[in-house]
Amino acid sequence: MSDHVYKKLELVGSSPESIEAAVQNALSRAGKTIRNTRWFEVVETRGYIENNKIDHWQVTIKVGFTLDS
Amino acid sequence: MSDHVYKKLELVGSSPESIEAAVQNALSRAGKTIRNTRWFEVVETRGYIENNKIDHWQVTIKVGFTLDS
Amino acid sequence: MSDHVYKKLELVGSSPESIEAAVQNALSRAGKTIRNTRWFEVVETRGYIENNKIDHWQVTIKVGFTLDS
Amino acid sequence: MSDHVYKKLELVGSSPESIEAAVQNALSRAGKTIRNTRWFEVVETRGYIENNKIDHWQVTIKVGFTLDS
Amino acid sequence: MSDHVYKKLELVGSSPESIEAAVQNALSRAGKTIRNTRWFEVVETRGYIENNKIDHWQVTIKVGFTLDS
Amino acid sequence: MSDHVYKKLELVGSSPESIEAAVQNALSRAGKTIRNTRWFEVVETRGYIENNKIDHWQVTIKVGFTLDS
Amino acid sequence: MSDHVYKKLELVGSSPESIEAAVQNALSRAGKTIRNTRWFEVVETRGYIENNKIDHWQVTIKVGFTLDS
Amino acid sequence: MSDHVYKKLELVGSSPESIEAAVQNALSRAGKTIRNTRWFEVVETRGYIENNKIDHWQVTIKVGFTLDS
Amino acid sequence: MSDHVYKKLELVGSSPESIEAAVQNALSRAGKTIRNTRWFEVVETRGYIENNKIDHWQVTIKVGFTLDS
Amino acid sequence: MSDHVYKKLELVGSSPESIEAAVQNALSRAGKTIRNTRWFEVVETRGYIENNKIDHWQVTIKVGFTLDS
Amino acid sequence: MSDHVYKKLELVGSSPESIEAAVQNALSRAGKTIRNTRWFEVVETRGYIENNKIDHWQVTIKVGFTLDS
Amino acid sequence: MSDHVYKKLELVGSSPESIEAAVQNALSRAGKTIRNTRWFEVVETRGYIENNKIDHWQVTIKVGFTLDS
Repeated sequence: MSDHVYKKLELVGSSPESIEAAVQNALSRAGKTIRNTRWFEVVETRGYIENNKIDHWQVTIKVGFTLDS
Repeated sequence: MSDHVYKKLELVGSSPESIEAAVQNALSRAGKTIRNTRWFEVVETRGYIENNKIDHWQVTIKVGFTLDS
Repeated sequence: MSDHVYKKLELVGSSPESIEAAVQNALSRAGKTIRNTRWFEVVETRGYIENNKIDHWQVTIKVGFTLDS
Repeated sequence: MSDHVYKKLELVGSSPESIEAAVQNALSRAGKTIRNTRWFEVVETRGYIENNKIDHWQVTIKVGFTLDS
Repeated sequence: MSDHVYKKLELVGSSPESIEAAVQNALSRAGKTIRNTRWFEVVETRGYIENNKIDHWQVTIKVGFTLDS
Repeated sequence: MSDHVYKKLELVGSSPESIEAAVQNALSRAGKTIRNTRWFEVVETRGYIENNKIDHWQVTIKVGFTLDS
Repeated sequence: MSDHVYKKLELVGSSPESIEAAVQNALSRAGKTIRNTRWFEVVETRGYIENNKIDHWQVTIKVGFTLDS
Repeated sequence: MSDHVYKKLELVGSSPESIEAAVQNALSRAGKTIRNTRWFEVVETRGYIENNKIDHWQVTIKVGFTLDS
Repeated sequence: MSDHVYKKLELVGSSPESIEAAVQNALSRAGKTIRNTRWFEVVETRGYIENNKIDHWQVTIKVGFTLDS
Repeated sequence: MSDHVYKKLELVGSSPESIEAAVQNALSRAGKTIRNTRWFEVVETRGYIENNKIDHWQVTIKVGFTLDS
Repeated sequence: MSDHVYKKLELVGSSPESIEAAVQNALSRAGKTIRNTRWFEVVETRGYIENNKIDHWQVTIKVGFTLDS
Repeated sequence: MSDHVYKKLELVGSSPESIEAAVQNALSRAGKTIRNTRWFEVVETRGYIENNKIDHWQVTIKVGFTLDS
């Protein structure tokens, strides 16, 4: 594993349910076009409000994936 | 929307259940006196421990709301 | 409480389920050898991916505990 | 001046024209309810895009003002 | 204590004597209008100079207080 | 809007005139290949000097755009 | 001195009097179990309030000490 | 260019007009005593207020210049 | 050079030998698909350990390259 | 005051007594060669230990002074 | 690997030769008392100077290791 | 050593070979005009690229030196 090169993308996922679901939604979308996603790092957590309720979470992540050599 | 002015308040909400519930508790309390809350940003996440269990979460957020013009 | 000295340890807990569970797992392990854990602060939140799904969360916390005087 | 106490508010101002105008718009709105605003610090600069053009700037500032003693 | 919501204000206190006195001056002023101040965090420490002497300290703090429920 | 996934790119735009123009130049170039750019965040502002004059501004931004689902 | 290895611990000391005394209290407690403490770095300064007075300071430090080789 | 050594100075420039003009004023003053200024980085942007209007901008920059070898 | 637009990518390179080699490995891989890479910035330096030896370095960089106009 | 240019120097002052005295010592030394020092900002606070006692404080400050025009 | 708990220690290693050797020296010393060190993160890089030459490097790392369950 | 005042300069050194050599080049140049340089801290590490190869490293350091009293 010491000879891999990885690329990191910054994505923002959303979900009305939870921080975890917002991250999973970003990963599911990323998986349509990127192979070999390996890890993510949460960069920012925020959300939007309607009538004093959390309407949806919006979580920014960096996703790391292996570049095919 | 380009002519709005927003104000941001810093609040700390608590919950024994989850990070999400701690944020919602802060927003519910804020809604008693502030109209037009729009979004929040999570600033810090911490918690208190009893007998090696998470007793309650304590989440600091900034809440943005529209100033009536 | 003004005469306490606390020590803070940095731990990384994991869980396939949620951020909250990853923190609890770290605290449960810490409780085997440390008495008097009092609070924690979330330092970093990340996770590992398998087949575009979150395989497990990995959360870094600082745990504060009272040093017996 | 060594015996003043100041309070700082966090505001977000907007303008389609420039960063400077977005700050001024926030200050003008603040001046309707706060006396004695003295200085500001730019905290964050961002903007919204329409058709690849900057639609409006959105600048977050902290505004310091003297508390009457 | 797990069901409290706190609000945090940013204040700047001054004193010719010490950092500690500058913080106390900000807290004393805050106490005229805010009930239930609980803790503070030092955010920035600076000062002004006259004839190569510290003329006064200027310390920025965040003050947390309980919102009555 | 709660089900969108966004991607963020980091770009550096330049202009001899102003910070605002440097950002617009980066956005105009990005618009040639990316659809649906929505917002930007200023990350770093710098510039180059010739004969003690600002020769050109160089502004780093993050640009967010909607990923087609 | 170029062949030493140091370890750094994070401690929180308290004092009703001053920032300096809070640091000294943490160092005194550390000295009961650690030999060869050499330097410290102040990481965070906060305090608790009673009746609008500073009740006690709480200062987080990192303490460096030589590991016996 | 790979064998140059640069020095960086921190300056604060002011202008009632704009952020750009405040930077240029700092550079013009620096040019009276420093040869070979090459680039600058904006470190902090703030301003002073009179009657709810921006009285003047105050921009902190780091200026890089070549040390003659 | 004042009219260029640059894009920055975040990459992670690895090497058992040195920080410098880990960066070069990332650049070599990037050069297979990107033209006109111009500069890089080291963002994070870490490594993996086997039997108390550094097994390989893992260095995160941002790579800037010219967008063809 | 809107047309001043300031320069900021980074200094480290020491004192066995207090943070305040360490800052004053740095300012006194600076005053031997620099005219018109105006303000300072505390950047870092650390100290050295002898026999579990604070031997001396070491405080890093930035000092701002007016450049004669 | 999803059920591990890790602990992170902060160490400072030194070497007259290179950053890499300073890190290895810290890891070698840590290996005398800690089993299962897994990874490290470079936190700070500094050095001491004698006669305008680098006398030795001093590198602060965080070392992660598995806690036996 | 408790009564010293130090000054810190920010320098950028370059080298085609390594991070260590870039730092040494900055120190060698500094030594031509500054006596008593004592330590340095690495602030930023970057480099320039030619044909997908590292052309030269460019390392920003802060250098501390004793002010003669």
